[in-house]
Amino acid sequence: MADDKKLTPREDDFSAWYNEVVLRAELADYSPVRGSMVIRPWGYGIWERMREALDDMFKATGHENAYFPLLIPMSFIEKEKEHVEGFAPELAVVTQAGGKELDEPLAIRPTSETVIYHMMAKWVQSYRDLPMLLNQWANVMRWELRTRLFLRTAEFLWQEGHTAHATPEEAEEETVRMLGVYRTFMEEWMGMPPITGLKTDSEKFAGAVRSYATEALMQDGKALQAGTSHFLGQNFSRQFGLTFQTEEGQEEYAWNTSWGVSTRLVGGLIMTHGDDQGIVVPPRLAPDQVVIVPILVGDDHAAILAKVDEVAARLRDLGVRVRVDARENLSPGAKFYEWERKGVPFRVEIGPKDLEKGSLALARRVTPEGAKRKEFVEENEAIQTLPDRLEAFQSELLTAARDRREAATVRGVTSMDELDEALDQGAGFVYSGWNGDPAVEQAVQEQTKATSRVLPDEEFRSDSAPTRCISGEGDAEHEVVWARAY
Amino acid sequence: MADDKKLTPREDDFSAWYNEVVLRAELADYSPVRGSMVIRPWGYGIWERMREALDDMFKATGHENAYFPLLIPMSFIEKEKEHVEGFAPELAVVTQAGGKELDEPLAIRPTSETVIYHMMAKWVQSYRDLPMLLNQWANVMRWELRTRLFLRTAEFLWQEGHTAHATPEEAEEETVRMLGVYRTFMEEWMGMPPITGLKTDSEKFAGAVRSYATEALMQDGKALQAGTSHFLGQNFSRQFGLTFQTEEGQEEYAWNTSWGVSTRLVGGLIMTHGDDQGIVVPPRLAPDQVVIVPILVGDDHAAILAKVDEVAARLRDLGVRVRVDARENLSPGAKFYEWERKGVPFRVEIGPKDLEKGSLALARRVTPEGAKRKEFVEENEAIQTLPDRLEAFQSELLTAARDRREAATVRGVTSMDELDEALDQGAGFVYSGWNGDPAVEQAVQEQTKATSRVLPDEEFRSDSAPTRCISGEGDAEHEVVWARAY
Repeated sequence: MADDKKLTPREDDFSAWYNEVVLRAELADYSPVRGSMVIRPWGYGIWERMREALDDMFKATGHENAYFPLLIPMSFIEKEKEHVEGFAPELAVVTQAGGKELDEPLAIRPTSETVIYHMMAKWVQSYRDLPMLLNQWANVMRWELRTRLFLRTAEFLWQEGHTAHATPEEAEEETVRMLGVYRTFMEEWMGMPPITGLKTDSEKFAGAVRSYATEALMQDGKALQAGTSHFLGQNFSRQFGLTFQTEEGQEEYAWNTSWGVSTRLVGGLIMTHGDDQGIVVPPRLAPDQVVIVPILVGDDHAAILAKVDEVAARLRDLGVRVRVDARENLSPGAKFYEWERKGVPFRVEIGPKDLEKGSLALARRVTPEGAKRKEFVEENEAIQTLPDRLEAFQSELLTAARDRREAATVRGVTSMDELDEALDQGAGFVYSGWNGDPAVEQAVQEQTKATSRVLPDEEFRSDSAPTRCISGEGDAEHEVVWARAY
Repeated sequence: MADDKKLTPREDDFSAWYNEVVLRAELADYSPVRGSMVIRPWGYGIWERMREALDDMFKATGHENAYFPLLIPMSFIEKEKEHVEGFAPELAVVTQAGGKELDEPLAIRPTSETVIYHMMAKWVQSYRDLPMLLNQWANVMRWELRTRLFLRTAEFLWQEGHTAHATPEEAEEETVRMLGVYRTFMEEWMGMPPITGLKTDSEKFAGAVRSYATEALMQDGKALQAGTSHFLGQNFSRQFGLTFQTEEGQEEYAWNTSWGVSTRLVGGLIMTHGDDQGIVVPPRLAPDQVVIVPILVGDDHAAILAKVDEVAARLRDLGVRVRVDARENLSPGAKFYEWERKGVPFRVEIGPKDLEKGSLALARRVTPEGAKRKEFVEENEAIQTLPDRLEAFQSELLTAARDRREAATVRGVTSMDELDEALDQGAGFVYSGWNGDPAVEQAVQEQTKATSRVLPDEEFRSDSAPTRCISGEGDAEHEVVWARAY
């Protein structure tokens, strides 16, 4: 059955558009368990490519993968005071197993610091065992009240890096390095350029000394915290006895970091590039980069299908991921709609006229302004230029997203009223001075619904540093970026 | 600290040897949660390569990956009668979440048939939507009383394929195809040649019409069920309303299959190839295929280290996975022990004498009888021949394992006493006739501790079919393979 009903336009209702896109592009679906989603093959295929790219980057920076238990004793989670305060309200708890009540309830991991540092304490004896650089790909569970597919689900997939170091400097360096890895990944693979910086104390990870984040701007002007990297100091090593013998023979607590990104990134991808036709998948992450649709009119279907297979094979030889959509029960138009909705970067149409002329019809999922959506290109040229066209498509997405972010950025705001007005007029990231007082963050949130996203890293700061706090009280100790956020 | 204590020899205590190997080769460790293990980087690296190889094979046979929820409503599991009987005693159950008692308890998935067929019912409307060929990589939980690292753990990692078809013939074909995929993987990647066949009714999957299995023989003569593939008929589609409209417009229940392998395979790998020095990892699965150890004696350490890097780079160019072990605090001998214990197929030693002679010392982790363990080979020749040497190593492991299996196979047994005696004398797979009565299986198990492993596929059957049942009562309806099993 052709599914050609239009999506709710983003302008009318961004949130409705988002949900429709996720469901109708077959990225994910609701499950029978409240708050848990099912990730369907098209969405999972995007996540698989994200995972592969990130995993390569983690390995290139010296990390190894391991796997730790899903269930964590409640007593572990209770050891780090801030950690338990942050996570206890969201835990799902196993109280029965094997037909019996458990002596101690077990929490489904909301994150794995506790059990990982417990194990590292067993493995690390001396400075020679450091740094220990581990990563885990896993499912985690946080019982959220209001859930959104991909953006906030009770269960989600993620990776969590956990490292132990001999010095705070080395751990801090690792924290910043991994933030940089995330930024590079988001720019080069997702075409989603985040700003980076330090979280304020009220926004940091429960148990961290300092949290860094990448914050990306969605098309509706809201920010998405897309990846975080935490300097944990010795908060966990002290609770779990993670010590090492220094070169000088002393016993010291190790210094830890943790960092993670999740299936939330898929939500970010959708809201960064999607349009009223559906999602747009950057070529480097697209499970299929090109879909070939045979136009079976005229007498000689066999010749068309043979050409389709030939073109597909030639493109695959060039390293392009190609899907041939030769389904018999669907019109070409219905296929066009489907693959547009699913965001495949290029469509190739091959019909009798193309065969006659020796050309292919190339349709881009999105085009730069003024460019043609569909071109007829001589066959060899079309095939040989497709890898470059995909690269160009990839980088145009990044440029467009960066332009949108910059266009929606307002700097030098000096009062809460001004902030509120800017946000209401469509601003995304709004920069101001801040005196460092959490009460100001609370006042801003109450008046404007915006929260502090980051104290921006140097490269993102304004040319002239703000002098006064947005509250009107006191000097600015930092420049801060405000936004309404997911 | 050098860990050079010898392992308990397999002959003395195979079970103790197994546990020591797992811990001291740093494959896995015990966790603070009873029955759950921690998979350490070396063990996880092997599992990652298994997963990649299998994933490629699943995709080549038309399957797509998806992800379904960890938690399953108890009411789902209770729908299929045999299924709940089989799994209820092993469930871990979440009763509290988000600080509240749940209205309906949620089970951590022991396997995902129920939720997957529930979702497929939503997605499948017509014969055009079939076959639906899905696979999931996930963690599952079965609360076992007696656990063994990798072999039987409360939580384990696995893949579970789930498919829906329009006809029973097509589903049966899929079931057998995936059994073949498992067999090919076990032979070509693991060097672990299983026998294949049908499970008897008493041994089949809870909820299946028919279960097929691959059964591998471990060095201690015990069988390991290493992978299973189930024809589920319409048992689940009826309970979850998974229907489709046929081409003729009728509503019918779909036909399902499911199939899985787990981290148990790592246990099988250890017990297939390990020796008293540690594990032996087949080259195709080894995270590192070659370890290079510099022998830093004499004056010119820099020249040795430069040569080590050069050789490593040249091997990597040939597609060989190389680790350079340049740790400064460990003697070469301690490194040799460690990499032997971890089963790296080849070791290359480079010292001043090798530099002088332009040769490399090549040590194989295991050698065919009569061959030299260590050879001095001219540098270029050593490098250029290493890929072939790795291939030869891989196939020798398979041959050796197959020879062991055949040497431990006894056919044509006609009584339980004979079976018992054969097993006590070290037989692995013992073949006999069977009248098809489950009471005979029970009697055999009581007397000999052996269970029926499979009704072997044609290729594994004896040349002359048995005529009488092992019980002495009645004609043989089938040939059956008995073994004591993990």
